[in-house]
Amino acid sequence: MTSHPMTPILLCGGSGTRLWPLSRQSYPKQFSPLLGQESLFQTSVLRLAGPGFNPPVIVTGNDFRFIVTQQMDEIGVPPAAVLLEPVPRNTGPAILAALLHVAASDPGALVLIAPSDHVVADVAGFRSAIAKAAMAADQGAIVTFGIRPDRPETGYGYLELADHAGEGAVPLVRFVEKPDRDTARAMLSEGRYLWNAGLFLARADRLIAAYRTHAPDLIAPVTRAVLEARTDLGFLRLDPTAWATAPDISIDFAVMERCAELSVIPFDGGWSDLGGWETVWRAMGPDAAGVATSGPAAAIDCTDTLLRAEGEGQVLIGLGLDKMIAVAMPDAVLVAPMDRAQDLRRAVAHLKTQGASQATTFPKDHRPWGWFESLALGPRFQVKRIHVNPGASLSLQSHHHRAEHWVVVQGTARVTVDGETRLMSENNAIYIPLGATHRLENPGKLPMVLIEVQTGAYLGEDDIVRYEDGYGRG
Amino acid sequence: MTSHPMTPILLCGGSGTRLWPLSRQSYPKQFSPLLGQESLFQTSVLRLAGPGFNPPVIVTGNDFRFIVTQQMDEIGVPPAAVLLEPVPRNTGPAILAALLHVAASDPGALVLIAPSDHVVADVAGFRSAIAKAAMAADQGAIVTFGIRPDRPETGYGYLELADHAGEGAVPLVRFVEKPDRDTARAMLSEGRYLWNAGLFLARADRLIAAYRTHAPDLIAPVTRAVLEARTDLGFLRLDPTAWATAPDISIDFAVMERCAELSVIPFDGGWSDLGGWETVWRAMGPDAAGVATSGPAAAIDCTDTLLRAEGEGQVLIGLGLDKMIAVAMPDAVLVAPMDRAQDLRRAVAHLKTQGASQATTFPKDHRPWGWFESLALGPRFQVKRIHVNPGASLSLQSHHHRAEHWVVVQGTARVTVDGETRLMSENNAIYIPLGATHRLENPGKLPMVLIEVQTGAYLGEDDIVRYEDGYGRG
Repeated sequence: MTSHPMTPILLCGGSGTRLWPLSRQSYPKQFSPLLGQESLFQTSVLRLAGPGFNPPVIVTGNDFRFIVTQQMDEIGVPPAAVLLEPVPRNTGPAILAALLHVAASDPGALVLIAPSDHVVADVAGFRSAIAKAAMAADQGAIVTFGIRPDRPETGYGYLELADHAGEGAVPLVRFVEKPDRDTARAMLSEGRYLWNAGLFLARADRLIAAYRTHAPDLIAPVTRAVLEARTDLGFLRLDPTAWATAPDISIDFAVMERCAELSVIPFDGGWSDLGGWETVWRAMGPDAAGVATSGPAAAIDCTDTLLRAEGEGQVLIGLGLDKMIAVAMPDAVLVAPMDRAQDLRRAVAHLKTQGASQATTFPKDHRPWGWFESLALGPRFQVKRIHVNPGASLSLQSHHHRAEHWVVVQGTARVTVDGETRLMSENNAIYIPLGATHRLENPGKLPMVLIEVQTGAYLGEDDIVRYEDGYGRG
Repeated sequence: MTSHPMTPILLCGGSGTRLWPLSRQSYPKQFSPLLGQESLFQTSVLRLAGPGFNPPVIVTGNDFRFIVTQQMDEIGVPPAAVLLEPVPRNTGPAILAALLHVAASDPGALVLIAPSDHVVADVAGFRSAIAKAAMAADQGAIVTFGIRPDRPETGYGYLELADHAGEGAVPLVRFVEKPDRDTARAMLSEGRYLWNAGLFLARADRLIAAYRTHAPDLIAPVTRAVLEARTDLGFLRLDPTAWATAPDISIDFAVMERCAELSVIPFDGGWSDLGGWETVWRAMGPDAAGVATSGPAAAIDCTDTLLRAEGEGQVLIGLGLDKMIAVAMPDAVLVAPMDRAQDLRRAVAHLKTQGASQATTFPKDHRPWGWFESLALGPRFQVKRIHVNPGASLSLQSHHHRAEHWVVVQGTARVTVDGETRLMSENNAIYIPLGATHRLENPGKLPMVLIEVQTGAYLGEDDIVRYEDGYGRG
């Protein structure tokens, strides 16, 4: 690593539908453990943590703020700052906002800009590539990372490199848009073309200067959004009025493709953007028959197939499949040939027209205090599992149309009903009559789980009157 | 119909794994509503009920006795008798037992022997075929029904007919074993070959005589099993010792293929044995693209594909599929090409070696009093939905390792805990401490549903001490 530490800027916005049903609008893929135990976001944070790195700056959306802090808390890496975009505006404004935030206290800081939903197999190799890049960046270069292709991929943009001998950063000739199959094949055999991984390393002031030169129209609105940002429970809320006037544009289009002097550090340590089920299948490391499975999934006589069983207690059997993808979750199942996975957008659009909540909403509904899921929904009742994080607290609330029965099945709860507070542990139950003000807290050091049985004529989430909320919700 | 009514004998034993995961050992396919609202068993009973028919005699296994009576109760057709096979012995002994039971009170009775898991599209046509057959049977014929083939099916046995002009029963030349593809094609174009549907109509005494002639070794053990049968809660339990000595053989092998003078009534009113997912797909009536769906399943760009979403609140998306089957249930998902569906046996065998309960057990566990299903299973808790039929009652019981919380969410319950009884309705809750004797009854006229939250170190179904049980269970 270089002599002075660098600051990671992690982009953690919404994600598309290309990994539906595991990735949905309400809980995009970076928060899920697609490979291994940790979420993609957590592995992305850990990959850029430790000696040589400052705490990261995160840019995310309002809906994900508590997921971000909870997931960082779980891995013991506190953020330097969490910037909240009032609405998504692509990477151009998001990165500029983070740069301005970093530069405000240290204009010469080295920053490493990275997505939070990619994977890297060889982390040590990745770090030594970063160290090389840092040396060039220290001397004023804007460095991007290029992945050596191992197949004629048409889903990525490419970086064309100059002829260059020796170690270290290589001058970039130009960006190449996503190619067709023949062009991709030609580039693969040529050797001077690398995949554009969307990773950048430079001094903050150098990058801001590049914005000033190539994307001057971003400077004013984003600067104002940062200067007028509001601190809220530790989050930095970019000013929505200023933000709304920022153009919606990627950093590649706004700045990088217009920069004459970019340098590239090649890297071939097993990178993937997990941009679709086919790349997930590849990154999972299929066996000799080309089969990759996750969860209680069994592939019988299958070839080149991905099977994922994501639900608790749900088995998935693939029998005689070739080049297929099947992903089973408790509330949604997808089956498609591997080469059709990029049409998932249409499937999700179809679900939306049907009004199916599965199009956008995850079965586990994440809240600032933990999460809940519906276990059963009947004509006049609903059963939920409610998971409250240690130290967390739900709002003081009441309902007009439902009564609730709570049974604690794990941990300790502090429950207040109409002003009376009691501690409850495993196997204790309490009744919340219709209209009663109530609050649920987890005062303990371990997660608390309770089963809620609701009865009433209307059981929607919007039947809630909030009197007091530790998370600033209305 | 003929002048004197006939008695249906419905065979309702266990079923294979060819429709897994919808059909499982604990709840075979005939009890599921595979097509339409009623179960296959119910439509089979209704098809042979009404004017011209006596109440049916059912032959089934011990595990299914309460499902049979409940499903018949639901459609308002009481059985004449329900014979319980101590162990399955194939159709030969099962049919003979039913014949002996019928003949004991009316030796000359006309009986119509039918499986309970087939479908017939044209019920009126089917009944007029039966009326024709009854005329022949009245005069001493053993009549079987032959289905006019509409494809070169290799999964069925065939009946070769004699050349015959005119209406009515046609002499049978011979039974033909399941053919290969070429033979099936030849038979289809020939026109004198019909599918063997496993339906027989004759006088009871005529059939018993045929058993005496062609399968004399069945007579003694089955006669003894019927004579020494024990009546138990309205069921007729065939004597297990005698039954154990009966050969395991089908009626085709034991009797029919050895009978010289069988008559055939041709029928072409849309019959299917629903013997595998491909025939289910066919019977569902695929659309112009060959797509058949059931439940919240969406087929996008699919051809010749079957999609079934059987779970509450679980969507199934098939994208770009051709000649595929996908069946999604809350606890199990199957994906296979349509022409591999017959290998399902292997998939289920694989699950068994893994110790997966889904191999044999249905998520809804049917009991004499109704059913329950597990909604969530945690480290020291389980949540169940319990559905109790009107008038039904669970045993008086206690548990050594768990306490239970009950919340009634539908209907009315009568609950007894340690000798104290109370009535509970929607939104009432009660606590059953570990060790307490308790009983749950539904005294009402509507189903009663409650949510049970169990807590404890061991939550297996076998932690139960039964003090008193209305269904004769230990």
